[in-house]
Amino acid sequence: MTAPLHDKRPGTSGARLPDTQHGMRRRNLSRVMHAVAAHGPLSRAAVASRIGLTRAAVSTLVEELIRSGLLDELGPERPGRRVGRPGSALAVSARGPVGVGAEVGVDHLAVCAVDLRGEVRARAVRRVGNRGRSPEPVLRELTAMVQRVCDDARRAGMSPVGLAVAVPGLVATDTRTVVRAPNLGWRDTDLEPLLLSGLPLTVDNEANFGALAELWLGKGIPEDFLHVSAEIGIGAALVVDGRLLRGARGFAGELGHIPVRAEGPSCPCGGRGCLEQYAGEVAVLRAAGLEPGEGRLGLLAERAAAGDKAVRRALRGAGTALGIALTGAVNLLDPEAVVLGGALSRLAPWLLPSLELELTGRTGGRACGVTVSGLGPDGPLLGAAHSVVRGVLDDPVGVSAAG
Amino acid sequence: MTAPLHDKRPGTSGARLPDTQHGMRRRNLSRVMHAVAAHGPLSRAAVASRIGLTRAAVSTLVEELIRSGLLDELGPERPGRRVGRPGSALAVSARGPVGVGAEVGVDHLAVCAVDLRGEVRARAVRRVGNRGRSPEPVLRELTAMVQRVCDDARRAGMSPVGLAVAVPGLVATDTRTVVRAPNLGWRDTDLEPLLLSGLPLTVDNEANFGALAELWLGKGIPEDFLHVSAEIGIGAALVVDGRLLRGARGFAGELGHIPVRAEGPSCPCGGRGCLEQYAGEVAVLRAAGLEPGEGRLGLLAERAAAGDKAVRRALRGAGTALGIALTGAVNLLDPEAVVLGGALSRLAPWLLPSLELELTGRTGGRACGVTVSGLGPDGPLLGAAHSVVRGVLDDPVGVSAAG
Repeated sequence: MTAPLHDKRPGTSGARLPDTQHGMRRRNLSRVMHAVAAHGPLSRAAVASRIGLTRAAVSTLVEELIRSGLLDELGPERPGRRVGRPGSALAVSARGPVGVGAEVGVDHLAVCAVDLRGEVRARAVRRVGNRGRSPEPVLRELTAMVQRVCDDARRAGMSPVGLAVAVPGLVATDTRTVVRAPNLGWRDTDLEPLLLSGLPLTVDNEANFGALAELWLGKGIPEDFLHVSAEIGIGAALVVDGRLLRGARGFAGELGHIPVRAEGPSCPCGGRGCLEQYAGEVAVLRAAGLEPGEGRLGLLAERAAAGDKAVRRALRGAGTALGIALTGAVNLLDPEAVVLGGALSRLAPWLLPSLELELTGRTGGRACGVTVSGLGPDGPLLGAAHSVVRGVLDDPVGVSAAG
Repeated sequence: MTAPLHDKRPGTSGARLPDTQHGMRRRNLSRVMHAVAAHGPLSRAAVASRIGLTRAAVSTLVEELIRSGLLDELGPERPGRRVGRPGSALAVSARGPVGVGAEVGVDHLAVCAVDLRGEVRARAVRRVGNRGRSPEPVLRELTAMVQRVCDDARRAGMSPVGLAVAVPGLVATDTRTVVRAPNLGWRDTDLEPLLLSGLPLTVDNEANFGALAELWLGKGIPEDFLHVSAEIGIGAALVVDGRLLRGARGFAGELGHIPVRAEGPSCPCGGRGCLEQYAGEVAVLRAAGLEPGEGRLGLLAERAAAGDKAVRRALRGAGTALGIALTGAVNLLDPEAVVLGGALSRLAPWLLPSLELELTGRTGGRACGVTVSGLGPDGPLLGAAHSVVRGVLDDPVGVSAAG
């Protein structure tokens, strides 16, 4: 599969290829697919007017996409509905490619298959404590789940075309090696030989996939935003002009290690007074007088909702620390919005007041707004599956030629 | 003039236009110009092989560029130099367009004209204290300097095609309005009606132009780096994949207002313990026991070089604060390098040890390297002029059609 266009890592983007007839045709095929996926069913004329090409040019592109099984023709429109020769509406194929997304969480594994229209067509989830488990058994279990989901999709007439895996850690620019996932205990682990699904594989950080899900599926989300998420650690992903900023080594977004209090407690990263020392799960549980353990973010939300004063005080403190770290991030990046996603979205009611007080005060009221994700903890898994779907929409011919 | 391609602000980039024959031709003309400007003189065959088009395609593009006065044909190569029909080497025209750059500094005004080969062809500089002066007289003076530089360029047979102005402040996305320049005392000042040079005008922050100069002219600078500069305040500019990250409102890069010590002294920005409170010019002078005033960064460098202990201690403290702020920035952005530019490059010998100690310690040795700019205080002015030149190279036909 050709690399999706949102991936700007060196050597993975086709944006700098010389302009040739062939490259132009591939990009125009992509424009047709995106238009029909986002706004279909559409007539050829409506596609032409949306993407600014002639109707004749669109017709030859559409024929190729129908032949490749990516578009369906819904049959002639009813006579009398419009003036002129009746057109035939186009829709993305319901029996075409699906993208498979998977997530390795600290306390769960999940897999889903999403079709070109963005609908989840098959799904599998397992609660399982993965902290400290070695990669082999975890990925054996995940491979079996991927196979089941792919079998379900194939039985429904669809073709899985790629697998994207979200992990809670830093991923190398090879998009397959987990460099560090401290909360799993993995280091320098190449997932490719351990995930034998027969599909092209892309591995990425869960915060990145969460941000992409927000961009593609969120309501009213701008094209420039900072997405902050947490499972055990605190991560962020910056989206600029609708693309992820990944950093030179793919390690951008380590919001959890911004120094909040320069002389504060030591952090395993080597720093002192990092945000995670004040707003990470372990720090918040400790401040609330609770023991660390699996699934404790849910407990925090329940207790806070029930009015537990110690928990609310701990979340206020975490909100203050988030506000200080985000002051730095907002000054540096000037995003249009900050979006709290993942587990943070459940805790937002108790984090937001102190967070906003800090951010507004420290920026003289000039900071952008802070909003809460509507996708919640499903973001990374959906973002992973949709990244494969976007790969098809971005280069339909490349994918159908490979498939 | 068409917006240069490094400008990704909404509505200014042509990258999302549908692919048409016309758009393809414009981009290929640009590829030819860039190849010849960077590597010329080149034969048509060498251009073709560099940009991956056929020699026939390159020849028709070259003819158009010669007709537009952008390329010169140097005459047939000497026989015997190579096998086959002698080609004729191409070079960018020495009598073609020039870009005019200008800088409004706190203590100086400067203007220069740069040709398509990147050479400075005319120049004017004036030391003048601009702090607290109203925009009208400052820009009247600058306009006269621009006119003189343009007259010089025209007398030498060249055509000024655009003016870019670097200012020490935040600039709106309209690229003409200075929103805030605290060290000049300007607010919401539209420069367009005050700079009547007859040339298309672009205004930008001096840190942004400094970073672009580093990208285009620096030696061994990667395509992903964080450029930190200081005149009176401390600014930064992030370059990603060879493009500036400007932020949603154009205000990205406010490194000076990252909180370094959350409960530290109040800052005029509304925050507390901002980097500028520890490493800004006024803070460093005060820590060294010196009075604030114009041109004091030079004094700091002299005293530090002479071994003044109070000055060296003050610069060590500033380096520590820079190291803490950069720890946050590096965790968030993962640049390939940090480059100290502008006035900071002169102070680097005394800032770097404590800065690197902090940055290395707080990132467990995983941070990128810190290097010092070779351009020094000339960066922003050169970056401004070169941004106009890049605009010509990026869209030669648009410019010659407008000119």
